[in-house]
Amino acid sequence: MLQFAKELYPINRSITGVGLRQTLERIGKEIPELMVRSVPSGTKVFDWIVPDEWEISEAYIQDASGRKIVDFAENNLHVVGYSTPVDLTMSLEELNSHLHSLPDQPDAIPYVTSYYQDNWGLCLSHRQREGLQSGNYRVVIRSRKFHGVLNYGELYIPGASEEEVLLSSYVCHPSLANNELSGPTVLTFLGRMLSKRKNRLSYRLVFVPETIGAICFLHSELERLRTKVSAGFNLTCIGDERNFSIIHSRLGSTLSDRVAVAAARLITPTFREYTFLDRGSDERQYCSPLVDLPVVTLCRTRFYDYPEYHTSLDNFDVVTAQGLEGGYQFVLNCVELLENSHRFRTRFPCEPQLDRRGLYPTLSNGPSGASVNLLLDVLAYCDGNHDAVAISEIIRRPIEDVSRALETLLSHDLIGL
Amino acid sequence: MLQFAKELYPINRSITGVGLRQTLERIGKEIPELMVRSVPSGTKVFDWIVPDEWEISEAYIQDASGRKIVDFAENNLHVVGYSTPVDLTMSLEELNSHLHSLPDQPDAIPYVTSYYQDNWGLCLSHRQREGLQSGNYRVVIRSRKFHGVLNYGELYIPGASEEEVLLSSYVCHPSLANNELSGPTVLTFLGRMLSKRKNRLSYRLVFVPETIGAICFLHSELERLRTKVSAGFNLTCIGDERNFSIIHSRLGSTLSDRVAVAAARLITPTFREYTFLDRGSDERQYCSPLVDLPVVTLCRTRFYDYPEYHTSLDNFDVVTAQGLEGGYQFVLNCVELLENSHRFRTRFPCEPQLDRRGLYPTLSNGPSGASVNLLLDVLAYCDGNHDAVAISEIIRRPIEDVSRALETLLSHDLIGL
Amino acid sequence: MLQFAKELYPINRSITGVGLRQTLERIGKEIPELMVRSVPSGTKVFDWIVPDEWEISEAYIQDASGRKIVDFAENNLHVVGYSTPVDLTMSLEELNSHLHSLPDQPDAIPYVTSYYQDNWGLCLSHRQREGLQSGNYRVVIRSRKFHGVLNYGELYIPGASEEEVLLSSYVCHPSLANNELSGPTVLTFLGRMLSKRKNRLSYRLVFVPETIGAICFLHSELERLRTKVSAGFNLTCIGDERNFSIIHSRLGSTLSDRVAVAAARLITPTFREYTFLDRGSDERQYCSPLVDLPVVTLCRTRFYDYPEYHTSLDNFDVVTAQGLEGGYQFVLNCVELLENSHRFRTRFPCEPQLDRRGLYPTLSNGPSGASVNLLLDVLAYCDGNHDAVAISEIIRRPIEDVSRALETLLSHDLIGL
Repeated sequence: MLQFAKELYPINRSITGVGLRQTLERIGKEIPELMVRSVPSGTKVFDWIVPDEWEISEAYIQDASGRKIVDFAENNLHVVGYSTPVDLTMSLEELNSHLHSLPDQPDAIPYVTSYYQDNWGLCLSHRQREGLQSGNYRVVIRSRKFHGVLNYGELYIPGASEEEVLLSSYVCHPSLANNELSGPTVLTFLGRMLSKRKNRLSYRLVFVPETIGAICFLHSELERLRTKVSAGFNLTCIGDERNFSIIHSRLGSTLSDRVAVAAARLITPTFREYTFLDRGSDERQYCSPLVDLPVVTLCRTRFYDYPEYHTSLDNFDVVTAQGLEGGYQFVLNCVELLENSHRFRTRFPCEPQLDRRGLYPTLSNGPSGASVNLLLDVLAYCDGNHDAVAISEIIRRPIEDVSRALETLLSHDLIGL
Repeated sequence: MLQFAKELYPINRSITGVGLRQTLERIGKEIPELMVRSVPSGTKVFDWIVPDEWEISEAYIQDASGRKIVDFAENNLHVVGYSTPVDLTMSLEELNSHLHSLPDQPDAIPYVTSYYQDNWGLCLSHRQREGLQSGNYRVVIRSRKFHGVLNYGELYIPGASEEEVLLSSYVCHPSLANNELSGPTVLTFLGRMLSKRKNRLSYRLVFVPETIGAICFLHSELERLRTKVSAGFNLTCIGDERNFSIIHSRLGSTLSDRVAVAAARLITPTFREYTFLDRGSDERQYCSPLVDLPVVTLCRTRFYDYPEYHTSLDNFDVVTAQGLEGGYQFVLNCVELLENSHRFRTRFPCEPQLDRRGLYPTLSNGPSGASVNLLLDVLAYCDGNHDAVAISEIIRRPIEDVSRALETLLSHDLIGL
Repeated sequence: MLQFAKELYPINRSITGVGLRQTLERIGKEIPELMVRSVPSGTKVFDWIVPDEWEISEAYIQDASGRKIVDFAENNLHVVGYSTPVDLTMSLEELNSHLHSLPDQPDAIPYVTSYYQDNWGLCLSHRQREGLQSGNYRVVIRSRKFHGVLNYGELYIPGASEEEVLLSSYVCHPSLANNELSGPTVLTFLGRMLSKRKNRLSYRLVFVPETIGAICFLHSELERLRTKVSAGFNLTCIGDERNFSIIHSRLGSTLSDRVAVAAARLITPTFREYTFLDRGSDERQYCSPLVDLPVVTLCRTRFYDYPEYHTSLDNFDVVTAQGLEGGYQFVLNCVELLENSHRFRTRFPCEPQLDRRGLYPTLSNGPSGASVNLLLDVLAYCDGNHDAVAISEIIRRPIEDVSRALETLLSHDLIGL
């Protein structure tokens, strides 16, 4: 996964354009069934209008000596996203109103965009900015906005049931590793795995430009999604090694919320839970009042809560192979819990006769112990109303113990659907 | 308001009679639409029978020298309410069984009544009582009970909706300031204000003799009230400066309960909440099982919880202009919260595009800050199920911030009913 | 009750057989309406098959000198329940694999059974076992298993309503006092009392062999029980003086759960509550998913939680007259709370006029005090939705105070059904 993320890293993504398409193509190499959707500029999607496509070839600042001191060719972050074209010479004072830097992080180039208002600007480290001498500078941005399309990728993996799990991440940030490449990377590899095996549930994976892309996707099939989606997860900032985090859904008590907590607990007792008030990614759209899908956002360290967020420091010092593995495991746990979220029922009234199945000691003072109790406790709540996660909560046993007991009970035909 | 209360103070009110009518007339000068209702003595109202009207002209004790030592002309409290007539000379020993005083508050004249059982008595300070010499005393009470009427005042202020707010206080206590004049005073001024402006909700204000008057009022139109009243407040002991208090409704979780808490919180974080087990005023009737109106009692310091309660010390040392103002503001807060208790819904799925309305920074690193977050958080819960009070509880922001955000969202047509 | 328990003590009970029948006969002398049911060996009951009947006449170990050193004639516990016949001479080493003793309780003979797997064994104190010399021993068990019947006793006491309370205990343990004779003893005396008086509810008392007997009983009329039983209690270990304990039902919030808590609180504030995870008696069957009767287990000290459990030390040092009395009172409290679990409603809107019924002081400053407040508080929740237990919880007053107030209100016709 790390290799894949590094391959995508240099591409200059935005919410539209060639970088976005290249990214979707590269993802499509891993999961060939991925459909790339196109929504024309100007399309009305709920309260929004799909913006013009943005294209950029060059952006730099030259000092009086003609030396390029800030150059988009060196780092995608040097130009404000969706900058309008410019070719001007101006004083440092004039230039300053178009420069962005971070006094508190003097070595970091900030990530700045202006999607819906014509503007232009350049980003640089505060250390470099402080070194600028007064005098004239030439600023060149060779870009254009034009009536084009917005793209997003969608992969539907049909399962035994039409009940659907929505998995979403975003592909509109240029060279930023944790926010954002960790999300589409984990999602791509998860999609590859899911499409190779038989699943009980159906899965819908979407790779969207954040906000406007999620809105386009929702606009395309809101009613169907509201009928079919029983759980969903938005993946973001899921490749660092620091933490495991859940941003709960708007109402906080959906199946996704319960599953995410159980999935995190499988990895660590010290994960972190946020309410919807701490949201900031596409859960904003998925959980909005008239949409209200049961979507929870999964992170390792939440955006805003790590210092490198939205700067050039969000690189492969932050995102690691181990970090991505942990994120993948987190989402996979959610998937497996959902795949196993059957609500089993005992096959007959009263306890079954476990001893003739070798599951209970035949002598009344024989060793029964923990495993028999576990089996009986799990069985006691196989009443058709509780899935594994709920049973785990009631009997206060780890979900993996409950799953093991359910397997034993199933293999002896003591429970069914 | 203080002036108004002082004007009402000398009137000798009881649950029937001329003092009650004078009080309703004086209130009617401020709110001319007030209807004065009359219920004949002997009328059966649920389990009760409206008592005879009571009239009193004189009541005094003369000592052996003919000096009036206790005189109703000096203080209404000197005679037990509803005393039967008497003109007798008797020893101090005999007299004592008809005297009421408070050993623990030697300077206070107690307030005593005997509405439903024939009896007579006089009330005096314990200090004066202890000074009485043995010997003969003449006791004169010139009173009569006769088939008359019980009166109460009712003011209906129609609003845009027929949904109704019940506001009640009582007018049967003689010269007592906090319990009782604070209640009708605040209610009168609130009625004057409400009847001068357009309201979303309709308001029904009642000025009743406590208990029997509330029962007469409920009897007159219980079924209609049960259909129309969505919230209600009983006002008592609402003119001192000591505290702000809520006596919750019988079941404790009506709209009125939630609104009262939010209204108190707008004034102070240290208000006090009582359960229905601490009740003692007309909430006893309004919340009784087969009535069950959503009524909460609002006080500054609750009856029983201030030492001057039901004595001659409950005067304008306890009730002040500032105390009444605070009480008025408390009830007004409830009214305004109810006026604004719409359950708004967002106009479209997904977040709206706030930047093109000037509500969101156009540059991604622009100043967003608290006000944008507030707007988005409020909007997230405008799902048709939550009113301002509920949203305030969920997003843990003061109700005034939520109201401000709702106004902004309304003015941009981002939410509706 | 103690005498009755002592009479039953020597009988060699098992899950089938003559000892079980003798026990049911003796119970039938106290409650002649008791029906003794018979279920033939081999009958399929849900997942179980009724085992063969077991008969035993002799069981002993002889040492080399021919002396009987362990003899079933001396203590029923000396033989493993359902032992197959044997008459063999063997070395101490061989013998040891068929001996059961408790190293931690060297003076206690353990209670061991092997109902569903052919096996044989003998139980003795660890102290005696340690004294055994190497050498040859003769082991004799004269027993047989044959196609017979399993018996259980059932007593139905019809009440005014067909709504039914299930009371269950078990009768399959040989000479053990707390677990088990305390249960059938308390149940027998309760049945005698209930069958002599008129009850509002109907009662079904069952005396079953544990597990298989409860399953047979449930199998015989599950659908009817699921319709009629509104509460139920399983009685076990209810004759010692140590504690009062509740094992809650599977879902934990049935009428039985609430009643058991109120019943225990009538006796002591320090009773103990267990969840269903701590179960171990016939609540395992009664609460199993497809049965799901509202059954709570009542104990004094719960099985497993007293050291003498399942050993010869569980005798009349543990079970006492006072212990049985306390257990009887505990169950009786449950019964009386159920008998009185009406949901009364006030007869009219608003408070009634209590003074003309002598229930309220006529002078406003007269002594009202706790009893008037109690009456009014209870009345306030007589809304047709709350029974005595619920009112007790809401107004935070002991159930006996609430019951007293309800009687007063009923006698004045202030409440009804």
